[in-house]
Amino acid sequence: MEKKIDITSKAVAEILSKATEYLQPNPAYRAKLGMLNTVSKLRGQVKATGYPQTEGLLGDCMLKYGKELGEDSAFGNSLVDVGEALKLMAEVKDSLDINVKQTFIDPLQLLQDKDLKEIGHHLRKLEGRRLDYDYKKRRVGKIPEEEIRQAVEKFEESKELAERSMFNFLENDVEQVSQLAVFVEAALDYHRQSTEILQELQSKLELRISLASKVPKREFMPKPVNTSSTDANGVGPSSSSKTPD
Amino acid sequence: MEKKIDITSKAVAEILSKATEYLQPNPAYRAKLGMLNTVSKLRGQVKATGYPQTEGLLGDCMLKYGKELGEDSAFGNSLVDVGEALKLMAEVKDSLDINVKQTFIDPLQLLQDKDLKEIGHHLRKLEGRRLDYDYKKRRVGKIPEEEIRQAVEKFEESKELAERSMFNFLENDVEQVSQLAVFVEAALDYHRQSTEILQELQSKLELRISLASKVPKREFMPKPVNTSSTDANGVGPSSSSKTPD
Repeated sequence: MEKKIDITSKAVAEILSKATEYLQPNPAYRAKLGMLNTVSKLRGQVKATGYPQTEGLLGDCMLKYGKELGEDSAFGNSLVDVGEALKLMAEVKDSLDINVKQTFIDPLQLLQDKDLKEIGHHLRKLEGRRLDYDYKKRRVGKIPEEEIRQAVEKFEESKELAERSMFNFLENDVEQVSQLAVFVEAALDYHRQSTEILQELQSKLELRISLASKVPKREFMPKPVNTSSTDANGVGPSSSSKTPD
Repeated sequence: MEKKIDITSKAVAEILSKATEYLQPNPAYRAKLGMLNTVSKLRGQVKATGYPQTEGLLGDCMLKYGKELGEDSAFGNSLVDVGEALKLMAEVKDSLDINVKQTFIDPLQLLQDKDLKEIGHHLRKLEGRRLDYDYKKRRVGKIPEEEIRQAVEKFEESKELAERSMFNFLENDVEQVSQLAVFVEAALDYHRQSTEILQELQSKLELRISLASKVPKREFMPKPVNTSSTDANGVGPSSSSKTPD
């Protein structure tokens, strides 16, 4: 039993760290966020400084350039479409973050801080009482029989307590399975919602492509250089509106 | 047109960097991988050093502890289930990596290195010829008319070339829309496949939970301390096999 508790302890600690990395893969952002949260707590502020999801970063950049390219650009319009979808996906990822934190990481943390810590405490106490009993047993005859009897009793009491706590913990391991199931459900929701967003986006882009393919190709019409004026050399932002773009 | 080309250039550069970050969110791993690839190329090795997907890292840890906990532990078995699914998801993520790299990032990189670079070259040449023409025009009468005429011709030639290249690029922007559609399809595939893996995993875990709930709860049976021997104190790995664990 002790070995299983030990493995479970290590498993919980490592799953906690790897699950956090799964949610927030960039260690620099993760550290910054942890620090910000601590600072906010110290100052009593509740600041919603979220983890910068890579979907959102890519989405922001696409939205920005898509808008700059303008409505008359098929690429610009598509960038806006994809950008908006990516921003939605970042929100879905944020929900996964919060969801997994509250329903998986926090309960697992509690398991580590409470149940497993308690068992550890029982085991350390048991070890002390075992050593005490062993020592006194070897000195039988030299110390009062009553003292040895008390040492045995304390040792037995501690042994039962430690074993009972380990037994109950291991016997109820279906609870940890349920925790895993909750995590899996959150991840499933995330991928399912992302799939939906992307499916809709895909239809939009297909429509854009088919519309753009139907527009008759324009021919490039070179404009002659106006040699009478220095300004009108035909190139530059001031004149770009006159050329077909 | 020049402004649109400029925006497109900046968009392509930023999308390239953000898309890479989207695929490989951990900058340390990303840098290491980039370096390894360069080293491999220099040495002529083709090493398949993949990006460590967070799904895979979490999966590895779950597999390891799940196996250590053993077949008789519901938590252990579930960890193996989840771990295996996460490893599959990491593979799907690897495919996304490779897919997006080959069908989106590389073509976009080519666009930047070839088409946009070419246009930039035309524009720089045009600017030079414009300055030359402006300069000579202001000195009319002081320099031979023939020289001015040649400057106009060169300027006009360059202007047409630059404008034609920009026009054609912008007119064919549906190609960039298709690139975006390819990216969206790859992301959709990734989320769809992850959804499938997680759905199957969810059913597995539900079964595990329902099976575990049907097993009658065992009662803890404390074993008395064997006071006749120093070894058999009833705790420790040697005796744990006798207790119901």
